[in-house]
Amino acid sequence: MNVTVRGRTRHYRTVTFNSTRNTVLLIEQRLLPHEFKIVAAKNFRETAGAIHDMIVRGAGAIGATAAYGLAQGALAFRGRDLQKFHRHVDVVYQTLKAARPTAVDPVNAMNRVRAAMRAGKIIEEQQKLALAAAEEFANEDVAHCEAIGRHGAKLIRDGTNILTHCNAGWLAFVDVGTATAPMYAAQTQGKKFHVFCDETRPRSQGATLTAWELARQKISHQIIADSAAGHLMQRGQIDLVIVGSDRTLGRTGEVANKIGTYTEAVLAKRHRIPFYVAIPFSSIDWRLKSGNDIPIEERHESEVLGSWGIPLNSKLKTQNSKLIYVRVANPASGARNPGFDVTLPELITGIITPVGIFKPKELWKRRSKLGFAD
Amino acid sequence: MNVTVRGRTRHYRTVTFNSTRNTVLLIEQRLLPHEFKIVAAKNFRETAGAIHDMIVRGAGAIGATAAYGLAQGALAFRGRDLQKFHRHVDVVYQTLKAARPTAVDPVNAMNRVRAAMRAGKIIEEQQKLALAAAEEFANEDVAHCEAIGRHGAKLIRDGTNILTHCNAGWLAFVDVGTATAPMYAAQTQGKKFHVFCDETRPRSQGATLTAWELARQKISHQIIADSAAGHLMQRGQIDLVIVGSDRTLGRTGEVANKIGTYTEAVLAKRHRIPFYVAIPFSSIDWRLKSGNDIPIEERHESEVLGSWGIPLNSKLKTQNSKLIYVRVANPASGARNPGFDVTLPELITGIITPVGIFKPKELWKRRSKLGFAD
Repeated sequence: MNVTVRGRTRHYRTVTFNSTRNTVLLIEQRLLPHEFKIVAAKNFRETAGAIHDMIVRGAGAIGATAAYGLAQGALAFRGRDLQKFHRHVDVVYQTLKAARPTAVDPVNAMNRVRAAMRAGKIIEEQQKLALAAAEEFANEDVAHCEAIGRHGAKLIRDGTNILTHCNAGWLAFVDVGTATAPMYAAQTQGKKFHVFCDETRPRSQGATLTAWELARQKISHQIIADSAAGHLMQRGQIDLVIVGSDRTLGRTGEVANKIGTYTEAVLAKRHRIPFYVAIPFSSIDWRLKSGNDIPIEERHESEVLGSWGIPLNSKLKTQNSKLIYVRVANPASGARNPGFDVTLPELITGIITPVGIFKPKELWKRRSKLGFAD
Repeated sequence: MNVTVRGRTRHYRTVTFNSTRNTVLLIEQRLLPHEFKIVAAKNFRETAGAIHDMIVRGAGAIGATAAYGLAQGALAFRGRDLQKFHRHVDVVYQTLKAARPTAVDPVNAMNRVRAAMRAGKIIEEQQKLALAAAEEFANEDVAHCEAIGRHGAKLIRDGTNILTHCNAGWLAFVDVGTATAPMYAAQTQGKKFHVFCDETRPRSQGATLTAWELARQKISHQIIADSAAGHLMQRGQIDLVIVGSDRTLGRTGEVANKIGTYTEAVLAKRHRIPFYVAIPFSSIDWRLKSGNDIPIEERHESEVLGSWGIPLNSKLKTQNSKLIYVRVANPASGARNPGFDVTLPELITGIITPVGIFKPKELWKRRSKLGFAD
């Protein structure tokens, strides 16, 4: 999407590859929304570090980063011993995989790159195929998000007030995003609408990342406390909810997503407000048979007990970064911090996919169209 | 309730009066939970300032503060001219009233003090009656909260997991509180239970004030993001919800309370979890005929866009206070910030009052018992 830096507007992807320098270029997401900076990971270990340290986050974005990282590692190999090359690529693969051990996207992406490499006979050929496959993966991610946008944009009219939760935007993918894709497409079609971004405590991705994205694209939006959506729905001020998903069960239509998604779905149902989930194929889990089997990550309590931000109106001197952590809560108290929740299919109006909008229970029937591999 | 300061545990009320020095003593709530400090308002203007600056907040607490402030102002009068005395008392009344112009509690409390003064013939007598009436008002506030506790404690058993929202605790009243009263009473009865405190964005009263109170009373508790309650309910980890109310309509049973209350009520209904609202008589509005007529205060967007806290893990130098404001959200984005929402009676299992627990629709029938004055 477009970002204006020092008066110049340019198109940026979340992840790109510089083949001249063999570097992976990433938007440094930890500094957003306060600073826009592109960092270059100069070797596969730095790329793995960028995934681990969450310079880049989001399913599609870390998938593409790992794909590029694998190509980057392969391209850096000097020598003619094919066996040594394969052992080296294995080390690269394992290093990138270990950067976010529970994520499936890096593994899926790298498996595709490795499969493509097999068609090459000599090292140089395999290196080229690796990069081509990584580029293809990234381009496909963008194409899928754009397709989600085309289908989802039909739900948006002039004057629609949309609620979204967390960040399933272009920063979480290579470009365009999933929950945001219909908004960007509708904007291109000239539609005027408004977006309420749930703050999304405790990590505030709605207030930081989604709001930053929407501001870049000049889409009318306001941030709300997560608990304010119910009131706005009650007063008729929300017409449509679109969220992303970390994992959607292809067999049941259950949707795991950022904590708070379930609450917004329950409220939407009560107020008869359509509730949509936008997902690429890679978010569909065809294996699990019940939402109860989805592991819910319990994250560190410090996230709930405080906030990260930029000090304002005070003469503060900070060390390395302008961003600081403040403890908000009572010092002697602890917290529970489940990172995700599971929304049941009966609360979901439709799943927006790259190949159309389906009822959650229809996913299994459409599995061949949705990229299911037996 | 009890607070331990430098190893010594003492009982503190939120508001008390020192008749020797003619000062109103207040817990400085803006420093909580990070610092416990009692401040003395030395004259009625300082007392009004303390209400205005939110050193003291909460319906019962500002009612008692205004009552004491009126007595304090009356007691400070020197002279024998009864007419001058009454003009002076009028100035005191108007000053205290103007400190929080939309609140009803200070006005109700001061009207009671003024009515009591009328029985006195000379100035000195009226001054004594004013202080006695203020003390009576404060004691009655405590007695009502204790009665709420006796009724509400029956809902709590060993092992009950309670959810509460915002702060309807002793800091919001003279002592004991409303939503917290059943917890304190159950603890006195030896029951073992656990409380989840909603953080209550944007002002985080749950994470700061309620958690601080519960920690002081050694009640097992954890803070959660507001959006996590739905997930915990879905997983069977919440058995009971108790909240307070800023205004409950006696004619309809509708409950206005801190933003987010409505959401928790909708979730509780879906999961068949009992949802109770604890209120003193003074929170009942017998006049309004519909919840739609309750004005919903739209507060400043800076509350949603950032947080107040104590910087940790950084070498920071602050100016006046240890508490600082950090901007969390995207700098170019705005926010909506409704302060309250309205919960419908069909979502409420019962209203816990000083004279018993009633269905919301029963309030009108019980109005004479509930202090309704025609």
